[in-house]
Amino acid sequence: MPAERAQEPWEALHALIASADPDQLLAFLGTLPPAETACAISRLSAADQRRLLTLLDPADAAEVIEDVSGTQAADLLESLAPRQAAAIVDQMASDRQADVLGGLPDENAEAILRAMPPEEAEDVRQLLTYPADTAGGIMITEHLAYRQDMRVSDVLGDLQAGRDTYADYHVQYLYVVDEAGTLRGVLRVHDLLFAPRVAPLSAVMMPEPLKVRTDTTVDELRQFFVQHRLLGVPVVDDGERLVGVVLPEAVEEASREQADRQLLSVSGIIGGEEFRTMPLVLRSGRRLSWLSLNIVLNLIAASVIAVYQDTLAAAIALAMFLPIISDMSGCSGNQAVAVSMRELTLGLVRPHEIGRVLGKEIGVGVINGVVLGGLLAGVAVLWQGNPWLGLVVGGALVANTIVAVSLGGSLPLLLRRFGLDPALVSGPILTTVTDMCGFFLVLSLATSLLPRLVRS
Amino acid sequence: MPAERAQEPWEALHALIASADPDQLLAFLGTLPPAETACAISRLSAADQRRLLTLLDPADAAEVIEDVSGTQAADLLESLAPRQAAAIVDQMASDRQADVLGGLPDENAEAILRAMPPEEAEDVRQLLTYPADTAGGIMITEHLAYRQDMRVSDVLGDLQAGRDTYADYHVQYLYVVDEAGTLRGVLRVHDLLFAPRVAPLSAVMMPEPLKVRTDTTVDELRQFFVQHRLLGVPVVDDGERLVGVVLPEAVEEASREQADRQLLSVSGIIGGEEFRTMPLVLRSGRRLSWLSLNIVLNLIAASVIAVYQDTLAAAIALAMFLPIISDMSGCSGNQAVAVSMRELTLGLVRPHEIGRVLGKEIGVGVINGVVLGGLLAGVAVLWQGNPWLGLVVGGALVANTIVAVSLGGSLPLLLRRFGLDPALVSGPILTTVTDMCGFFLVLSLATSLLPRLVRS
Repeated sequence: MPAERAQEPWEALHALIASADPDQLLAFLGTLPPAETACAISRLSAADQRRLLTLLDPADAAEVIEDVSGTQAADLLESLAPRQAAAIVDQMASDRQADVLGGLPDENAEAILRAMPPEEAEDVRQLLTYPADTAGGIMITEHLAYRQDMRVSDVLGDLQAGRDTYADYHVQYLYVVDEAGTLRGVLRVHDLLFAPRVAPLSAVMMPEPLKVRTDTTVDELRQFFVQHRLLGVPVVDDGERLVGVVLPEAVEEASREQADRQLLSVSGIIGGEEFRTMPLVLRSGRRLSWLSLNIVLNLIAASVIAVYQDTLAAAIALAMFLPIISDMSGCSGNQAVAVSMRELTLGLVRPHEIGRVLGKEIGVGVINGVVLGGLLAGVAVLWQGNPWLGLVVGGALVANTIVAVSLGGSLPLLLRRFGLDPALVSGPILTTVTDMCGFFLVLSLATSLLPRLVRS
Repeated sequence: MPAERAQEPWEALHALIASADPDQLLAFLGTLPPAETACAISRLSAADQRRLLTLLDPADAAEVIEDVSGTQAADLLESLAPRQAAAIVDQMASDRQADVLGGLPDENAEAILRAMPPEEAEDVRQLLTYPADTAGGIMITEHLAYRQDMRVSDVLGDLQAGRDTYADYHVQYLYVVDEAGTLRGVLRVHDLLFAPRVAPLSAVMMPEPLKVRTDTTVDELRQFFVQHRLLGVPVVDDGERLVGVVLPEAVEEASREQADRQLLSVSGIIGGEEFRTMPLVLRSGRRLSWLSLNIVLNLIAASVIAVYQDTLAAAIALAMFLPIISDMSGCSGNQAVAVSMRELTLGLVRPHEIGRVLGKEIGVGVINGVVLGGLLAGVAVLWQGNPWLGLVVGGALVANTIVAVSLGGSLPLLLRRFGLDPALVSGPILTTVTDMCGFFLVLSLATSLLPRLVRS
């Protein structure tokens, strides 16, 4: 290790927090890319984190919080007094407000909302009622809406007057509404360039614009933006009133988050993200909740072995093959699970088409089962010189591969039909069933051929 | 099953293709959401797919291809004659052209490029040189660039004259360049609203705009758009010349695709997406390439059991616990892999910080190992009434859980340092090592305690 090493960003940050100079702090944070900011903040002590957010003025603190991931942001806000947290949340964009408060326990979110200006709190409360993976959950409420009887010149005047505010709006369309707030039309901001200044908006707008509802799902929105390459789509409520705008990047972000969550779920990280800066007990506990279920399922599956103990003791060479058959069947089944989950996401297969999936998987199961089973049989014969041992372990792997791919392919469809999350539940169910079935196939086959297995 | 059932979209599509009426075909496709289109097309025979694309005029065929995923789109184009495929590709946006041709074998892509207008082919060839997960690979080349000595009124005139073309551009900025094409400034389209018409662009533009290079990675771009909430960023080449624009939704789309690929990789679907409409032999073969590696690794791991056959035969109750210890260690290790992969993606941990990760994982390993090991020991004692059996299987699971989480946590960092893909390689390495280690721990411990295990 070198005698002098470069200071890490979090060490510099810690020193600046200790010196309590907000301007220097801000200047330093400005030099860090967002990932560095997130990393540096996560390495600070809880006390340093609190001090950092209270040293900065709320608008700057809001920007810092924008750089960190949702889970981290919620943790940071939770560490502050509700009044301080409220001042920061007040400075965030509407979609981020709902995201961050949605990640807090209800009572903590409510404490922060009570400390916010009542009108804004009301807006956020409304946003919090929409599920996170719907248009309502990912829309922004900052948008430009004008009454249909206003003239182009009025709008241009308002745009010029409100320029500073609108610069933060990411919407490239003006929405035209009637007195009740019902969406009537749309026009692009730069269409105003070409419009006669005295015309009312109703004369220059495109009527009957494309729109989505607050409960349109993220998957549907992604398809919408594939079909219509727009820069945003208006969201209306049940009364056809304009309530917000969904941007294409918000849709892609939400589907990326879905994919990330799936990746964590299939690996057994459940109940939200885990970062190594979280308390040890929380991390252990959440992982254990998943592992405990798995060990119970494992015990159930392995109890099949206990039933056939005598066979196994008589033909001990089988013992080496039990974990192989268990693991290989799990691998084959998981491949089929992954393909089905992907086809479901892309809409290439529907949850009721189990017959179709089985038809397509059985072929793969037969081919791969024969190849892998043949390989395993070959190893068994070479190792023990007993073709019957090869027949038992090879035959069991052929049959169990077919079971595994059939089950793996159809399980996600079945789970989806019952409203369960395939990423979360497929793995444990699959491996339990394929383990039991695999152990049973090997050991029952061995029992019936036992004289031949122990011949030598 | 009902006597009469509604016609599925692909059946309707098949009938329309048979009737060879392009207008009706197009009208019908217009009624389908993109996912339905993708699904319906994937269910058609190869001959029907070919006929569909040749019946439509190239611009319409290009729109159909935009609705289907990259892999499917490449397959469709491959089925056509190069001249027909070229006419369709010619009608696609530049980023999609590179995407689709990049998915084809080099010689097929080259055949299509040779049939395209030489200039456009040259542009696409240039785009194809950029890796898919860099700014060059996801940028669009359609953008508005003007020389810095042009006047606002010239630009307004050009915008009005080229309105139809520009309507398809998704960029909300005008880029200002010098004679050599070097990026000099930027202004928002609607800033023209407020600018004096006689001013040269150099007077109204924002100089020294933010920009990225063609080799900026998708992860860096995502951080860029978190930090700068812009609607696009200009891309420059090594000579600082403006070559394209990256839109935030393209960045989110590319990171979602990365997450999707990771999800497929960890489940053992490698070499690209698999859809059940692909030929059986291709699907089997690709899955087998992964499974064959795994069965070899499994055999290596299980050979530890063969070494200790005599111990196992003497204390056959152990046999039930071997697959449990193998599977549980795999689960614990995979959780740690998932957390490390996520922290790497978010930049919360760096590839050289293996010591830090180990420090954080060992605590989890000890807690979870003790809980799971205790549980397993309890089951063993209750079942066989022999506390020594409990000690052997419980102790082995405690130790192996610590090994598994330590290895699982550090493996992705190590692989990243060697430029390997953690999603692809972590799983097999992890389970092989934890299996060998687990089997060795149980069986060597059992061997040394054998008199006590078989006492009863």
